Amino acid sequence: MNGAQALIRTLIACGVDTCFMNPGTSEMHFVAALDTVPDMHSVLALFEGVATGAADGYGRLADRPAATLLHLGPGLGNGLANLHNARKGHTPVVNIVGDHATYHKQYDAQLESDIETVARNVSSFIRWSAKTAEVGGDAADAVAAAYGPPGQVATLVLPADISWSDGGEVSAPKPAPSRTTASDDAIREITGALRSGEPAALLVGGTACRESTLALARAIADATGAKLLCETFPARIERGAGRVPVDRIAYLAEFASMQLDGLRHLVLVDAKAPVSFFAYPDKASWLAPAGCEIHTLAGPTGDARSSLSALADALGASPATAARQQLARPELPDGALTAQTVCAALGALLPEGAIVSDEGNTSGLFAAGATAGAPPHDWLCLTGGAIGQGLPVAVGAAVACPDRRVIALESDGSAMYTLQALWTMVREGLDVTTIICNNGSYAVLNMELGRVGAEGAGPRAKAMLDIRRPDLDFVALAQGMGVTATRATTAEDFNEQLARALATPGPTVVEAVVPSIV
Amino acid sequence: MNGAQALIRTLIACGVDTCFMNPGTSEMHFVAALDTVPDMHSVLALFEGVATGAADGYGRLADRPAATLLHLGPGLGNGLANLHNARKGHTPVVNIVGDHATYHKQYDAQLESDIETVARNVSSFIRWSAKTAEVGGDAADAVAAAYGPPGQVATLVLPADISWSDGGEVSAPKPAPSRTTASDDAIREITGALRSGEPAALLVGGTACRESTLALARAIADATGAKLLCETFPARIERGAGRVPVDRIAYLAEFASMQLDGLRHLVLVDAKAPVSFFAYPDKASWLAPAGCEIHTLAGPTGDARSSLSALADALGASPATAARQQLARPELPDGALTAQTVCAALGALLPEGAIVSDEGNTSGLFAAGATAGAPPHDWLCLTGGAIGQGLPVAVGAAVACPDRRVIALESDGSAMYTLQALWTMVREGLDVTTIICNNGSYAVLNMELGRVGAEGAGPRAKAMLDIRRPDLDFVALAQGMGVTATRATTAEDFNEQLARALATPGPTVVEAVVPSIV
Repeated sequence: MNGAQALIRTLIACGVDTCFMNPGTSEMHFVAALDTVPDMHSVLALFEGVATGAADGYGRLADRPAATLLHLGPGLGNGLANLHNARKGHTPVVNIVGDHATYHKQYDAQLESDIETVARNVSSFIRWSAKTAEVGGDAADAVAAAYGPPGQVATLVLPADISWSDGGEVSAPKPAPSRTTASDDAIREITGALRSGEPAALLVGGTACRESTLALARAIADATGAKLLCETFPARIERGAGRVPVDRIAYLAEFASMQLDGLRHLVLVDAKAPVSFFAYPDKASWLAPAGCEIHTLAGPTGDARSSLSALADALGASPATAARQQLARPELPDGALTAQTVCAALGALLPEGAIVSDEGNTSGLFAAGATAGAPPHDWLCLTGGAIGQGLPVAVGAAVACPDRRVIALESDGSAMYTLQALWTMVREGLDVTTIICNNGSYAVLNMELGRVGAEGAGPRAKAMLDIRRPDLDFVALAQGMGVTATRATTAEDFNEQLARALATPGPTVVEAVVPSIV
Repeated sequence: MNGAQALIRTLIACGVDTCFMNPGTSEMHFVAALDTVPDMHSVLALFEGVATGAADGYGRLADRPAATLLHLGPGLGNGLANLHNARKGHTPVVNIVGDHATYHKQYDAQLESDIETVARNVSSFIRWSAKTAEVGGDAADAVAAAYGPPGQVATLVLPADISWSDGGEVSAPKPAPSRTTASDDAIREITGALRSGEPAALLVGGTACRESTLALARAIADATGAKLLCETFPARIERGAGRVPVDRIAYLAEFASMQLDGLRHLVLVDAKAPVSFFAYPDKASWLAPAGCEIHTLAGPTGDARSSLSALADALGASPATAARQQLARPELPDGALTAQTVCAALGALLPEGAIVSDEGNTSGLFAAGATAGAPPHDWLCLTGGAIGQGLPVAVGAAVACPDRRVIALESDGSAMYTLQALWTMVREGLDVTTIICNNGSYAVLNMELGRVGAEGAGPRAKAMLDIRRPDLDFVALAQGMGVTATRATTAEDFNEQLARALATPGPTVVEAVVPSIV
């Protein structure tokens, strides 16, 4: 058994059975080994950012890591932005990065570079596999590291000769540490805060955004009069009719400050204290009001569910009585197609059990409201702010959940970073309905230009935020990658095209031509 | 004057007047400053890999750096592969990477990451600008570092508050060290080697690939009976009718070894001793034959031209008598469209003064031969092996040389990494004719699969190298970005479409449907 075979068999033994890849010559033995270990589902991407984003989407839905296979430093570089998003969202990912043969590195050949320094940007676990006999053990360590807690990106660098040499050994899974429940002291402190009569809020994020955990948080909030808030960009939140309603903290610091205004206690449940996405001149980065005390019930390595359960017990709150969202869809809109009517149509038509990968940006602003009362579904956000996530995450979610409809709510600018994801949707026959809101603009930057106080901005600056001239034609772009695509310019068109796309097996793109809301 | 204005004015003062960008919120003051410093030509890219590859192409043609503007760590990551190519090709590039405001970094907001560790992969000069008053000086240092020698990627990290605060000061250019001429001892040693009667070769690369320098090398080879060879992937070589003919060392180590067979002396002129691109089991990585002595006339910081001139003087060789390439074009081909007939048509039609950005990979194998006797032109190669370079480099070359025709010789797999470059070609009205050879395969990997000895490869492995299912339609993809495009399936079609494209102002794509040569 060579190193590559031992590696793949170890991944399978550790529960990692899906690999999103864009390989090169140094990874050919890994690729060749796929025929000897058919349990590994290998998914080809035409660009590494698609592979890494798909691994992120897969991990969010499967709650276990996918592997990636990337080609040396440049391949890792191409995948870095979506690994950044995975890191910020605590998604477990096992990155396999091929390297030159150990004895070849001294020659500084064309593709030689310092892989480890690139990996460090996104990975807490980095290992350069130095012996074929140890590749299996290295892979098991990488999987354990990826599980965390918290979930993380673990990078294993695999030199070509370590991969092709005989003497590989399969490793059994290695244990990952358990998550810890809040201490009695923490429960007492937080119970006191919530019973103090002072304004308080629970802020949930990460692992706390699943239904049964949210129900505990909701019950605690109901029992104590505390607000229940969710982080701005949860990796995955279970929501919709029959589930617990929760408001996300607004992206715009001005609105977030209003949500947090007057609070004296903020209880963090696998969430960070809210800070501004960017800094703005003369505006605070720290959003909690002065004097607001921050309490941590569960940090990133904590067990949000058991900690909330202990807190609920201490407060006598029962999740059975938590307030639930009623089924309430918007009417199908008519007339002009706008960001708002796109979102209304989505709310009207969203199928039960759908997974929404949301990179709608400014055009998606109304989506959360319009879908709040739709049948139960999962919502996946842009965790790390690196755009180009939406389509790859949709790919990974669909691979993880082949029986569910995935909807990518996309914007034109973001779609163009990793549009190659559409090709993989066809290759794998994924049931992904992609909505691309085309407003011809980096609209969020047009808004930010004013917010950062860049008063001198004139036509030369604004041209850098304008992505017309030439117009992007997403129908042609999708068709170029084999995807059925249509374009809507009225709400009626869009309703009909979206309904048809959602009822059609395999991938479809619906381009929605909308005005910018900015 | 704020930091951004001081930065841009310093860049202009240092001769850097072009910036390829994909900005975000943290770069908005740089963008806003474009209206106050109109001498800076800003070029928008829809993906960072286009911006960095364009800076590489620009630097190769302009012999001075362009700037890039990238958005924090993820933006730099997206641009890393083409910065790797620039690093390997010694192209001067000034990378400006925006960062969060200095006081905002402590909050670990969504886009916070370790930018410096990513930059280290490609940059020998990295500076995090800490004071607005020093941004100008930092920029001048970055430009000087980019010039080298050798040319390099210099990265300046620009925190948002350093950019927006008042107190910026424009800096004058800082001197870059001069290149050094070979010592008398080196000249003596090499003169002795070339006069020894033992088989010898000159190996030129980098800065030695310009016409007047090549003529010196050719004269020395002619005078001494030495071979004249060129590195496999020169960043830019001046060639064609009336210029000095020189054979490039083959990509395949087997063929390269044949070119080097029997040599006892190899004289390096801004080139590295040849090594295999990848390692292969039981094959040597070091390609010079055993016992071949390596002599360095000029290293990467050396002055190739003055060193060759001194060597020519010592040997009594005159560039005036150097052998020159005759004008000799292939006939326009007919019949089946293949990689070979595509290259023949290119040789038949290549306009004088053209610039060819060559990422044809296996389909481009015949291009060097078919164009050797075409009118004088520049040829740009894939310096670092990170594919996705060809189209962005064509963008940068066309921006640097608006009066010349640029031809991107592309392959399907490579084109898909940075296809967004087509959009910038339209936006800027660039005279770029793109030929995309579509063989539906990562053909080079199909070849490499056998060469690395991956015998176990079966259908599951081969599916990872097959990029049909679905077929890519480059006409639709190009049209989706506003580019006029046609598809050729016969040689006659291709001749006619290529001739028309070359005669048409602005960008055109010609998709050539060809069988894989592998």
